[in-house]
Amino acid sequence: MPRIVVIGGVAAGMSAASQARRRQPEAEVVVLERGRHVSYGACGMPYNLEDPARSMEDLVVLTPEKVRERGIDLRTRHEVLALDPAARTLTVRDLDADRTGTLAYDALVIATGASPVRPPIAGIDLPGVFFLRELRDGQALKRHLAEARPERAVVVGAGYIGVEMAEALVKRGLGVTVVEKLGQAVPGFEPAIAEAVREELEGHGVAVETGVTVQGIERAGSGLAVVTDRERYPAGLVLVSVGVRPNVALAKAAGIRLGETGAIAVDPGMRTSAPGVFAAGDCAEARHLVSGRPVWVPLGTTANKQGKVAGANAAGADETFAGIVGTAAFKVFDVEVARTGLGFEEAKRLDRDAVAALSRHASRAHGYPGGRTNTTVVVAERGTGRLLGAQMVGETAAKRIDVFATALHAGMSVEDVEGLDLSYAPPFAPVYDPVLIAATVARKEAAAGRAVPVPAATS
Amino acid sequence: MPRIVVIGGVAAGMSAASQARRRQPEAEVVVLERGRHVSYGACGMPYNLEDPARSMEDLVVLTPEKVRERGIDLRTRHEVLALDPAARTLTVRDLDADRTGTLAYDALVIATGASPVRPPIAGIDLPGVFFLRELRDGQALKRHLAEARPERAVVVGAGYIGVEMAEALVKRGLGVTVVEKLGQAVPGFEPAIAEAVREELEGHGVAVETGVTVQGIERAGSGLAVVTDRERYPAGLVLVSVGVRPNVALAKAAGIRLGETGAIAVDPGMRTSAPGVFAAGDCAEARHLVSGRPVWVPLGTTANKQGKVAGANAAGADETFAGIVGTAAFKVFDVEVARTGLGFEEAKRLDRDAVAALSRHASRAHGYPGGRTNTTVVVAERGTGRLLGAQMVGETAAKRIDVFATALHAGMSVEDVEGLDLSYAPPFAPVYDPVLIAATVARKEAAAGRAVPVPAATS
Repeated sequence: MPRIVVIGGVAAGMSAASQARRRQPEAEVVVLERGRHVSYGACGMPYNLEDPARSMEDLVVLTPEKVRERGIDLRTRHEVLALDPAARTLTVRDLDADRTGTLAYDALVIATGASPVRPPIAGIDLPGVFFLRELRDGQALKRHLAEARPERAVVVGAGYIGVEMAEALVKRGLGVTVVEKLGQAVPGFEPAIAEAVREELEGHGVAVETGVTVQGIERAGSGLAVVTDRERYPAGLVLVSVGVRPNVALAKAAGIRLGETGAIAVDPGMRTSAPGVFAAGDCAEARHLVSGRPVWVPLGTTANKQGKVAGANAAGADETFAGIVGTAAFKVFDVEVARTGLGFEEAKRLDRDAVAALSRHASRAHGYPGGRTNTTVVVAERGTGRLLGAQMVGETAAKRIDVFATALHAGMSVEDVEGLDLSYAPPFAPVYDPVLIAATVARKEAAAGRAVPVPAATS
Repeated sequence: MPRIVVIGGVAAGMSAASQARRRQPEAEVVVLERGRHVSYGACGMPYNLEDPARSMEDLVVLTPEKVRERGIDLRTRHEVLALDPAARTLTVRDLDADRTGTLAYDALVIATGASPVRPPIAGIDLPGVFFLRELRDGQALKRHLAEARPERAVVVGAGYIGVEMAEALVKRGLGVTVVEKLGQAVPGFEPAIAEAVREELEGHGVAVETGVTVQGIERAGSGLAVVTDRERYPAGLVLVSVGVRPNVALAKAAGIRLGETGAIAVDPGMRTSAPGVFAAGDCAEARHLVSGRPVWVPLGTTANKQGKVAGANAAGADETFAGIVGTAAFKVFDVEVARTGLGFEEAKRLDRDAVAALSRHASRAHGYPGGRTNTTVVVAERGTGRLLGAQMVGETAAKRIDVFATALHAGMSVEDVEGLDLSYAPPFAPVYDPVLIAATVARKEAAAGRAVPVPAATS
C-alpha cells in the first residue's frame, strides 16, 4: 500500500491530503502537523477577534476527529526534523510523547507554510507582544484582550494583517496606532490606493504613522511602550505584523531547490527538484501569468489550489496549477481594497513600458443613496494598451478587481476591458462601472503615452 | 455648418448628442425630445419611489438648461412625426406651440427608446393603473401613493421592473401581489434562479402568483380589482409591467430596415440601412457576442454605449460598438440577481449542445458572520466545456456575474474560469469563490455530458 505523507495540516496541506485520499483510496495518507489545530481559516482571525463572544475555534473547518473519520491518518503535534529524499524517509518528532522516529513515504507533499518575520529588536519576546499567524496566536491575543483589557494598542507594520487588526482592535474599543517603516500604508499598493486606506483608517480614529522605524519594545508601568525613531508609544498590546517568510529550512537542508524568491521552486505540477516530493502553499512559489516569472505570493486561495494539485499528483495524477495573476484583497472598515497583476513600480522593474492611470468614480448610479467614490489605478503597457494590473479601493472593489484579474488571464488590452458588457443596476453600479471608466482613462493614457499623475511612494 | 439631429434625449440620445458635440465642435447639434425631461436615470425610479421624501427629479442628471449650456440645441416637447431619409428631413411637431415644421439634417441619430407593452384588456386605462417607463410615469405613480394612500397593490408581470416595484411598494407599506402569466418569476432566468427570487419575494411578504392570466381590471369600491383566470385581486394601485417594445414606427415608416427582433437593424457603427441615419439604445439591435446574432436587449448601459458610438459616427468618426453578451442584473430585497450569456433553453434553441450546471455556495468565508448561499447556474457546451452563460442569485451576484461576462468576451471554457485567480478575503469571499465552484461543477457536467438537475420552466 503506497504511503503519501503531507507535512502541514492547514490550507495547502489539508487540501493535498483530501485530494490524495480521494484520488487513491487504497493509499495510506498521513498528515504530520506540528500544532494542535488543522484545517482552519487563519484569514478569519482579525474578524473573529472583533467579537468577544465568538470562540477562535469557530474558524476550524474540520476537527482532527473529522479529518480522521475521512480516512486520513492525522498526527498533530508531530514535527518533521529532517527529510532524506534519496531514502524517501522523514525524521519525525512526536512532541507530546517526546519521541523521535523515522517515517518512510512513497510521495511527499511539503506544506510547511510561512512564519512571521520576527524583527531583531529588544523586547520582541515580552508578554503583551503578539504575532498573528497560527490559530494559537489568535487565541493568545484574544485571551490577552479579555484578561489584560488593554486600552491602547500599537500595530507594527501596515500590511494587510496590520490594517485588518487595527480595525479589529478599534472595534474592541482600543485606541490604535499603526507604525510603518515605509512611506505609505499597505506597501506594494499604488500610492493613491494607499492614501485612501490611510484616510479610511484615520477616519475611524486609527493613528497611522509612516516612515517610522521601531527601535525596541520595553516595559512601561503595567504595560509596554514601543520605542521608535520618532516617538515612544505606550500600549497594553503590541501586534507585530511586518511580513512572513516561507518555511523552507527542512526543504533546504534536504537539498531541494529554492527559487529566486526564497520559496521552494516548483513546476506547474507542484513537483520540487526531488523525485516524489511536491510542495504547495505558502512555502512554495507560483508562476505569475503576467510576468511569466516565479513569484512568492502567500495567500490562502492559492494555497488551497496548489494543495489540491500537489495532492492529486502525489496520488499519481497529472494535474497542473495554472498560476496566479497576483490577486489580493482585504477590507478596512467600510471599504474594500484589492489588487491584481503588476503594480506600476513592479512593471518598471520588469522593464515593461508602463503607464498608471488614476480614476475616481461613483460605485452606484446617480440618485441612488449610499455608495462610495471608488479609486482605481490601472497599469497598462504604453502603445499596445495591454492590461498589466489594476488596484481599487471602495465599494465592491474585490469583485470588481476580479474582472481585471479575468482580463489579465485572457491577455486583454484596456480597450478590450472598456468594451466589456458589465452588469448595471442602480444599487450596485452606475451605467459606466468604475471598471469601465478606469479602462477608458487607461486606454487614453496608454495611447498618449504620457506619464501619470500618480506620485511615487516616498519610501 | 453641418447639422446633427438626435431624436430622443434620455440615455442613448443624450450620449449621442454629447459625443457629437465633443467630436465636432463646429456642428449644430439638435436634440428633439417628446417629453419634458431629458438625461435621467429611469432605472432608478423603483428605488426613488421607496422614499417619500425624495423628489423623482433627483434622477435627472442634466437639466435642460445644463444641456443647453453645453452647446446642445435641446428642444423638449418636440415630437418627430415623419422622417424622409432621401431628403434628409424630419417633420417635427412642437407640442406646446401646437405647430408643425420641417427640420433638415446632415446626420441623424434615432434614439426613440422603447415603450411599455399595453395588454389589450378592459380597464387598462382606469385611474390607478400605472406603467413605469418615463420619468413622468414615476412622478404620477409617486403622487398616487402620496395622495390616494393605497393599501394594496397588484403588479402585473414578474420581470425586472415588476420585481423591483414589488419591493419598492412593500417598503412603502403596501401589501403586494405579483401576478405573472408564465410559470415562474423573472421569465428568461433559469428556473433555479427564478425560484430563489420567488423565495426572496415571499420571504418579504410579497404574494407571487405564477401561471395566472389577467382578464381585466375593474373598479371595486373606491379602488380597483384585477380579474384573473384564478382569483380577483383588489388593489388601490395596479402596476402593469409586462415588457417593452422598441419604438420603431418612425423608422419603419421611413423604410429603414428592422431586424428579425423587430428593433432597428444596425451595423457595428450603429448605422441603419439609410445613409446618414444612425440608431442607438432601446430602439436598436445589438450583436450578441456568444451567439453571433443580432439581439434586442434594451438596457441602460448598452444604450449609453451605443449612443456614444452613434454620436461619434454622426460627427464623422468611425467607432464601433463591440456588442453585448447579454449581461443584466437587478436587486430584490437582500439579494442580487444577475445573468450573462445564453440561458439553457436559449442555447438549445440556437442548436448548441449545452449543459446547465447548478451549484450553491457560501458567499463569504467559513466562520465569517452574515453572507448568503449563492445559487449559480452555468451553461456550457458539452464536450468542449466552452462557457455559454451564467446566472446567479445571492450576495454580490452582479459583480460576480461580471467575471463570467468577461470570460464570455474572452471565449473562455469553464475550465479556464475554474483556474482564475480571484480575490479572496473572509468578508467578501470564501477561499473558493462561488464563481470558481460553479465553474468546477460545470466542467464536470460538460465533461460527463450528463443532462442537468435543473427542472424546466413550467410555462
